[in-house]
Amino acid sequence: MKKGIYPGSFDPVTLGHLDIIMRASKLADELIVGVLVNKSKQSLFTLDERVELLKRVTKNMPNVTIKSFDGLLVDFAEEEKADFIVRGLRAVTDFEYEIQLAHTNHRMRPEVDTVFLTTTLQYSFVSSSLVREIASYGGDISAFVPECIEEDIYKKYGFNK
Amino acid sequence: MKKGIYPGSFDPVTLGHLDIIMRASKLADELIVGVLVNKSKQSLFTLDERVELLKRVTKNMPNVTIKSFDGLLVDFAEEEKADFIVRGLRAVTDFEYEIQLAHTNHRMRPEVDTVFLTTTLQYSFVSSSLVREIASYGGDISAFVPECIEEDIYKKYGFNK
Amino acid sequence: MKKGIYPGSFDPVTLGHLDIIMRASKLADELIVGVLVNKSKQSLFTLDERVELLKRVTKNMPNVTIKSFDGLLVDFAEEEKADFIVRGLRAVTDFEYEIQLAHTNHRMRPEVDTVFLTTTLQYSFVSSSLVREIASYGGDISAFVPECIEEDIYKKYGFNK
Amino acid sequence: MKKGIYPGSFDPVTLGHLDIIMRASKLADELIVGVLVNKSKQSLFTLDERVELLKRVTKNMPNVTIKSFDGLLVDFAEEEKADFIVRGLRAVTDFEYEIQLAHTNHRMRPEVDTVFLTTTLQYSFVSSSLVREIASYGGDISAFVPECIEEDIYKKYGFNK
Amino acid sequence: MKKGIYPGSFDPVTLGHLDIIMRASKLADELIVGVLVNKSKQSLFTLDERVELLKRVTKNMPNVTIKSFDGLLVDFAEEEKADFIVRGLRAVTDFEYEIQLAHTNHRMRPEVDTVFLTTTLQYSFVSSSLVREIASYGGDISAFVPECIEEDIYKKYGFNK
Amino acid sequence: MKKGIYPGSFDPVTLGHLDIIMRASKLADELIVGVLVNKSKQSLFTLDERVELLKRVTKNMPNVTIKSFDGLLVDFAEEEKADFIVRGLRAVTDFEYEIQLAHTNHRMRPEVDTVFLTTTLQYSFVSSSLVREIASYGGDISAFVPECIEEDIYKKYGFNK
Repeated sequence: MKKGIYPGSFDPVTLGHLDIIMRASKLADELIVGVLVNKSKQSLFTLDERVELLKRVTKNMPNVTIKSFDGLLVDFAEEEKADFIVRGLRAVTDFEYEIQLAHTNHRMRPEVDTVFLTTTLQYSFVSSSLVREIASYGGDISAFVPECIEEDIYKKYGFNK
Repeated sequence: MKKGIYPGSFDPVTLGHLDIIMRASKLADELIVGVLVNKSKQSLFTLDERVELLKRVTKNMPNVTIKSFDGLLVDFAEEEKADFIVRGLRAVTDFEYEIQLAHTNHRMRPEVDTVFLTTTLQYSFVSSSLVREIASYGGDISAFVPECIEEDIYKKYGFNK
Repeated sequence: MKKGIYPGSFDPVTLGHLDIIMRASKLADELIVGVLVNKSKQSLFTLDERVELLKRVTKNMPNVTIKSFDGLLVDFAEEEKADFIVRGLRAVTDFEYEIQLAHTNHRMRPEVDTVFLTTTLQYSFVSSSLVREIASYGGDISAFVPECIEEDIYKKYGFNK
Repeated sequence: MKKGIYPGSFDPVTLGHLDIIMRASKLADELIVGVLVNKSKQSLFTLDERVELLKRVTKNMPNVTIKSFDGLLVDFAEEEKADFIVRGLRAVTDFEYEIQLAHTNHRMRPEVDTVFLTTTLQYSFVSSSLVREIASYGGDISAFVPECIEEDIYKKYGFNK
Repeated sequence: MKKGIYPGSFDPVTLGHLDIIMRASKLADELIVGVLVNKSKQSLFTLDERVELLKRVTKNMPNVTIKSFDGLLVDFAEEEKADFIVRGLRAVTDFEYEIQLAHTNHRMRPEVDTVFLTTTLQYSFVSSSLVREIASYGGDISAFVPECIEEDIYKKYGFNK
Repeated sequence: MKKGIYPGSFDPVTLGHLDIIMRASKLADELIVGVLVNKSKQSLFTLDERVELLKRVTKNMPNVTIKSFDGLLVDFAEEEKADFIVRGLRAVTDFEYEIQLAHTNHRMRPEVDTVFLTTTLQYSFVSSSLVREIASYGGDISAFVPECIEEDIYKKYGFNK
């Protein structure tokens, strides 16, 4: 696999995301993590913050670059001349949505393929929304996110930890 | 992705398998198609025949090699020094079985990852058992298998087509 | 819906099957229940017995005919000049298999469509194999099969009830 | 099947919807496409526009009528003296929701049945929300909607194509 | 099972909820029904009203107590010194979400287990949102909620029944 | 929960089974592990051996008893005057099968309920058939079965480990 794109909202990046990034970066020559500008959903972190947090947790991975993108994923993939899109799979409901997305992207740009990695077991239930919910009550998120971004998350909810 | 293994029974190889082989061979530097010696299930084609049919349909793909293997997939992957295993995903029931297999393999050999490709839409319902059933009644299998192996399949059921 | 075919093994017919037959016969002008000659699986009842039991339980439905067929369903549907195939849906695993079958049939004969009915809630867990298992221990099957065939089933297992 | 109702939001009608309409209109004597007045969700097209677009794409189908309805589907079905409701099935998550809906409707009005058709493979991943998302970026929607309504969709997002 | 907690929004309590409460109260020595203070979703009934309706429908169950809680479920379970959490399972999509929740709770508080009961068949499609939708049109909800709370629900939508 | 039954083939018992047994024994006053006499499937271990292995791995659990049973599970539950049946849930396909079984049992003996526990994440992919397959090649099964029965399994396949 030459050049891959791993797209997402990363609001915030979790240990589940990081697991996929590390494994995809081993398989690809070059990996771009694409942070989605989400027009419709309100996000906890701004686009710049989400990019910054990702840069922080991937700083020791030389072939990983963090970029943001607006618009359709396939257009971003074309601009970046990516060979494939990486997606993480956790549950059946993920799977169905992802399959539909993969077929849509294939229909629009057949030259960009989609490859799936299954999230490592211990992170298979972790999601950004789970992290946000637990953090909003000041609960313990240390098992779900990289240590170096914990404080940033608690701050958003007014906790000093 | 450096070196991948695409394992299966391929009894016989279908257009769905071929779709995965072609796409995986674009992403990998080198792809080994591993034909499983299946002790428990009776197969239509012998191991040698299955290998031969695969060689025939992949003869124009320079980075694809056909090999057979006995034993556990992870042991075969280690022998071959493969970086990853490729699996095709069609339906939810596939997905669950594959996820369990991926977790098992990861538990036994964490250094070999598993990547999934979704079968292209038009082949998403094709399987070797479907091909065998239709061929056993002399039905038309031209939409499901490579043209150059159709005759071999019909012969197994005593048809001259 | 002009002419429909409801195919199956019916080994034996259950109240779940009967529910689909009754409802399909209201929607169709003419309904053929097609009993499959199953080469590979050993059946409890012979083909003739399965046809006879179905005739018994549908004797008051004037637009329902019982026929057996060998070979591919789509070929049988063409011979009978059927407009559509009827299938019952109970669970997700049913659904996936049925969708694959529908796509295969559509690929082979686009002029025959497939329509699905969901089994009525109270019969949604009933299957022929469940009935056979319970009857093999002499358990109570009265909630799962038409009353007029109960005795025939118990006899197969050597019970006189 | 005498008289059927195919309900939905159709915001806007896609080639997937049109596929179901065409096939259902062959099976039914008369088919009503019922456009839902959706109180809670904001729609891209007004109710009148959605009805108009549907009329345009079904103008050559003599036994298809477009109507809008407010309130419960089963009440609409009763008013129209419909024999059955038609629903399209694409994925497992669809299936579960649809099964629950069918059981609810059956509990409220047992005399109206629900029949399911599976969306033809090539449209199995198409949805109105997908079309809206792609169109909002000016992306190519020609593979997803009838040609005669493409312009109407782009106009909503300020594109002149 | 010593002490259990059955958490939910109960907006309003349905016959499906009541079925789980009755069965869980037989298995547990003591059952707490925990009504969630839902910050993000607008509810039909206030927290106090939801607690009151639950008290009304469980008044003959001596080992059932109704309480409300704010914050994380696992924290509430710890405060109450509960041994296990009870959840009802209806469909596959429920199942996946519930499994993720169970794994999250187990990760945060391993000493509190989660047990699942399957909703009795006849209530397997009933949900609070279904009840609200039907009631909003003045439809018949008598098959879905306890009789003694029907009037309260209709009143919320301005019906006098 | 007063008295529970955890049924299965246990051919052989895995760490996944043991996880369910330990957790169920904490919730129940008394737990019977019911080993199924399986007429149709050939087993690796005899019934007596399977019972003996289970006794060995549960010897420190005072409220757990190992028994074998022939016939229908609900009949066994009645004989034992059990209040509930315990089942482990791993994947969606499990879930569907288990739900159908629970509904069948409920229909036959409404007084016996079924409760489900989700297998702890790290054992969620472990099954007896997986253990048998790996052991048949002499692979490492130490992560999947209790240490004290490993040797017994290898011996069955002629390995001295």
